[in-house]
Amino acid sequence: MTIDHEVSAEQRSREEDLLQRVLRSFDTCEDPRLDEIMRSLVTHLHAFVREVRLTEAEWNKAIEFLTAVGRITDDKRQEFILLSDVLGASMQTITVNNEAVGDATEATVFGPFFVENSPRIDNGGDISFGAKGQPCWVEGTVRDTDGKPVPGARIEVWEADDDGFYDVQYDDDRTAARAHLFTDEDGGYRFWAITPTPYPIPHDGPVGQLLQAVGRSPLRAAHLHFMVTAPGARRLVTHIFVRGDELLDRDSVFGVKASLVKDFVQRLAGTPTPDGCVVESDWARVRFDIVLAPEEAS
Amino acid sequence: MTIDHEVSAEQRSREEDLLQRVLRSFDTCEDPRLDEIMRSLVTHLHAFVREVRLTEAEWNKAIEFLTAVGRITDDKRQEFILLSDVLGASMQTITVNNEAVGDATEATVFGPFFVENSPRIDNGGDISFGAKGQPCWVEGTVRDTDGKPVPGARIEVWEADDDGFYDVQYDDDRTAARAHLFTDEDGGYRFWAITPTPYPIPHDGPVGQLLQAVGRSPLRAAHLHFMVTAPGARRLVTHIFVRGDELLDRDSVFGVKASLVKDFVQRLAGTPTPDGCVVESDWARVRFDIVLAPEEAS
Repeated sequence: MTIDHEVSAEQRSREEDLLQRVLRSFDTCEDPRLDEIMRSLVTHLHAFVREVRLTEAEWNKAIEFLTAVGRITDDKRQEFILLSDVLGASMQTITVNNEAVGDATEATVFGPFFVENSPRIDNGGDISFGAKGQPCWVEGTVRDTDGKPVPGARIEVWEADDDGFYDVQYDDDRTAARAHLFTDEDGGYRFWAITPTPYPIPHDGPVGQLLQAVGRSPLRAAHLHFMVTAPGARRLVTHIFVRGDELLDRDSVFGVKASLVKDFVQRLAGTPTPDGCVVESDWARVRFDIVLAPEEAS
Repeated sequence: MTIDHEVSAEQRSREEDLLQRVLRSFDTCEDPRLDEIMRSLVTHLHAFVREVRLTEAEWNKAIEFLTAVGRITDDKRQEFILLSDVLGASMQTITVNNEAVGDATEATVFGPFFVENSPRIDNGGDISFGAKGQPCWVEGTVRDTDGKPVPGARIEVWEADDDGFYDVQYDDDRTAARAHLFTDEDGGYRFWAITPTPYPIPHDGPVGQLLQAVGRSPLRAAHLHFMVTAPGARRLVTHIFVRGDELLDRDSVFGVKASLVKDFVQRLAGTPTPDGCVVESDWARVRFDIVLAPEEAS
């Protein structure tokens, strides 16, 4: 909805004068990049205040909201990232920094649940470490934009369990549903994980209240996180999503890209698995072939 | 400094698509005003990210900065207000909400140091309550935009002491350099205060670091706060500033307006005061005639 607030020419000029005064205050800035960022930020911030004719009561509410976001944020909970996520600012930053290069795999949001020093598994191993969920076989290759396999690429994978929780949200210090592995000499990789299911972003804080006030769901489309690094390649941070998931077009953080939606094929219990095991429950399998952009594309 | 970052048409369209996807997520919002605010906010936030081509490292720094602003904010310290102040957003909000009405006195920033339930003084009393500083006689009238005196208008005044501190920044719970009084039957008012002197906004936190990074001073031009209310009138929140103060054109929160700069006339010790007292130090006097806009102008 765009509403046209009428403003007299005299008033417009007072508002413009103030903006110019604020912009001039950065004339002393000796860092050209910081100068550029601050001027753009101030210009858009003032344009927002003027465009909506922000009332003093609404300004107060905004200050209270940010204060509440600050108050709930600690080492384990990052409400400012959530805020950036639900406003699409995180995804826009990813988009700006990951311009398409040939058929390179698209990037998406990093999210707050990555952890350094995940356990290493062998190719064909299991990342779940007991996390609840349907077993899921994941396989694919890592290639460069010339189609050449990338051996030794490091693949970090992490995901939520069937209850919607990452291990860092558990009460104990268990590591589960995360690991890293390396591609083989043909650029291939394969591992057991669990079939991703939708879960809400933490919504018991001010960002959750904001979503509720605008009638939006906190649910994220089901996904499995990947971070792939290899010498000479641009780091790829992405997810794969589940074709058929009804949340694909209303992911709460706007992370879904059509190219990242994959077929998770369902298999009945007892169907032989690719690695010759017998799984006593139904299981799924998915293929994700990855193409890394060259480093200079960063 | 405006830098032109070249972006391909294809990339531009991916970024625009994402923005539209985020905007559509507010289609469920049933509060038209909140809807308007969120759409404008998101549009400008994305324009900022795209315009400066915000890097992921810079996005991280922004999250860290906001986290630090949140961490230092408590009941006594409001770093989000400071941030809004130094970016001129507070003053722009004031400007948007106080359009000129006839010769009504101009408004300026409220600041974080107002306190409810200030002591009441009689007309001609002293607001300093022992606060350090040069005695200053303040007088004037309150009128409406038709020139009619406004008797019984409530005038709240508050200011920093000669060391640059408001009473709420003292270690003890003393009240000083703040009070309220009412205009007499002719709309007149008069009181003793202290001559305002420049002081820095709190600059030992992230906002202070930001000012330092861009080469800006945290100093505010010397000022005395007024809040004037009367039935049927628009509430006036303003300051008066000291003519000759070298900070007038670089007030850290952009509060100065030419119409609010007043002559603080210096008087030698022993010169008879308007109320027939003898002051043993040099003193000053200033006149501030106030015109209140009608309430419907809000």
